[in-house]
Amino acid sequence: MGDTGDAESAPGPTPRPVSTLALDGQPERASARKHRAILAAAEEVFLRSGYLGTNMDELAARSQVSKQTVYKHFGSKEALFVELVTSMTDAASSTVHNEIPDAAAAADVPDYLRDYAERQLAVVMTPRLLQLRRLVIGEVSRFPELARALYERGPRRAMDSLAAAFARLDDRGLLRVPDPEAAASHFNWLVMGEPVNRAMLLGDAAIPDESWRRKHVHDAVNVFLAAYGGC
Amino acid sequence: MGDTGDAESAPGPTPRPVSTLALDGQPERASARKHRAILAAAEEVFLRSGYLGTNMDELAARSQVSKQTVYKHFGSKEALFVELVTSMTDAASSTVHNEIPDAAAAADVPDYLRDYAERQLAVVMTPRLLQLRRLVIGEVSRFPELARALYERGPRRAMDSLAAAFARLDDRGLLRVPDPEAAASHFNWLVMGEPVNRAMLLGDAAIPDESWRRKHVHDAVNVFLAAYGGC
Repeated sequence: MGDTGDAESAPGPTPRPVSTLALDGQPERASARKHRAILAAAEEVFLRSGYLGTNMDELAARSQVSKQTVYKHFGSKEALFVELVTSMTDAASSTVHNEIPDAAAAADVPDYLRDYAERQLAVVMTPRLLQLRRLVIGEVSRFPELARALYERGPRRAMDSLAAAFARLDDRGLLRVPDPEAAASHFNWLVMGEPVNRAMLLGDAAIPDESWRRKHVHDAVNVFLAAYGGC
Repeated sequence: MGDTGDAESAPGPTPRPVSTLALDGQPERASARKHRAILAAAEEVFLRSGYLGTNMDELAARSQVSKQTVYKHFGSKEALFVELVTSMTDAASSTVHNEIPDAAAAADVPDYLRDYAERQLAVVMTPRLLQLRRLVIGEVSRFPELARALYERGPRRAMDSLAAAFARLDDRGLLRVPDPEAAASHFNWLVMGEPVNRAMLLGDAAIPDESWRRKHVHDAVNVFLAAYGGC
C-alpha cells in the first residue's frame, strides 16, 4: 500500500530470544511479547487515526520497538491492519459464542433469547468494536476481503449459530421455525439493527445504557416470539 | 480542514452572470450551472476517493471550473462535503416519503407495508447511497455532525414517518401498536437490517436482486404482522 517499501527493503535487527515470564508463569520469548505490544499499539493507533492516517513511526514508538521490528513481525502496514481486525473480531465472536448456553438444554425459551441478546449487545456495543466496524466499513473499497472477513466472523457467524439453535428449539417443539436462516436474520436485526446503526452514525454517545437495552431486548424478543413462538 | 487555506486567501475571479437555458426552459445564471457541475463532480470524486483522498484540483478539473471557483461556491473542502452528503440524503429521503401512499387511506395493510418496504429498499440499496453511507461512517470521528445529519435525515426520518403511519393504522383498528416508535424501529430493521449491513461490509456485489428482495420483504412483513397485526 505504498507505505511499506522503505522498511521492507531495510534489513531489521534479529530479535534476541530473551526469556521473560508471561502472565501464566511460563517462560516467553521476547518476540512474543513484542508481537503483543505491537498489536496493542496498532489497536490504539489504527482505531484513532484510521488506515491512511496511521503513522508507522508513531506505532513503533508506542510499541517500544523499532519500525524494522514492526515490519519483521507483520510484514506490512496492510498485514498488521488485517491481523488487528481479524483478531479483534474473533475475540468478540468467541466471547458471545463460548458463553452461550446450549439451546438443546434451554428450559425457558424467552429467557434463553433475552440472555443471548443481552450478551451479544454487551459484547458488540463497546467503543472499540464499534470503531473497528466504522473503520472497516470506511475502507471497504481498499480492503474488500477484510470487510468480508469481519462480516463472516461477526454477524454471519452469529446468525449461523442462531439458526442452528432455532432448528434445535424447533425440533424440541419450543419454537416453530420453518426457515431457521430467515428467523436468525430476523432475530439478529430486531436486536442489533437499531443500536448498531445508531452507534455507527451517532458515535459512542449513542451506545445505549442498561435500562434502554433491557426494554429493547424485551420488545425485540416479544416480536420474534409472536412470529415464531406459536406452537 | 487544512486543505483550504491557500484557496480561501486567494481572491477568486468574479463569476460573470451569463444567461443560459436551464432544463425547465427558464434563464439560468452561469453561477447556478457551475454550482451543479461542482456538486456532480464532488459526488463522483468523494464517493470514489473518500474525504482525505479527494483532490480539489481534480475535482475542479472535472467540474470544468477553476479551483478558486469551487471555493467561491462552497467555501471549503469540508463545506462541499457537507453539502454533498445532505443533498444526497435529502433527495433519497424525499423520494421514499413523497411517493408513499397515505396510511389513512391504505385499504390493505399487508400490501401497504410491502409496498413501503420495497420502495425504501429500492431507494436505499443503490451503489451511490451505500457508498455515501460507508464514507460517512468511516468519517464519524472527523465529521460527527455530518453523520448525525445523515442519521436524522435518513433512518430517523423514515422511522418517524413510519411511527406516524402505524399510529394512524392503530386508530383505524388495522394494527395494534401500543408503542409506535418501537414498532417503527422493529419494522425498519426487519426490512433494512440484513441488506444494509451486508452491503456495508460485502460491497455492492451484496446488493440483493429483485427476487431476494421480494421474499425478504414478504417474510419481514409477516413477522411484523404476527406481532402488531392481531386485532
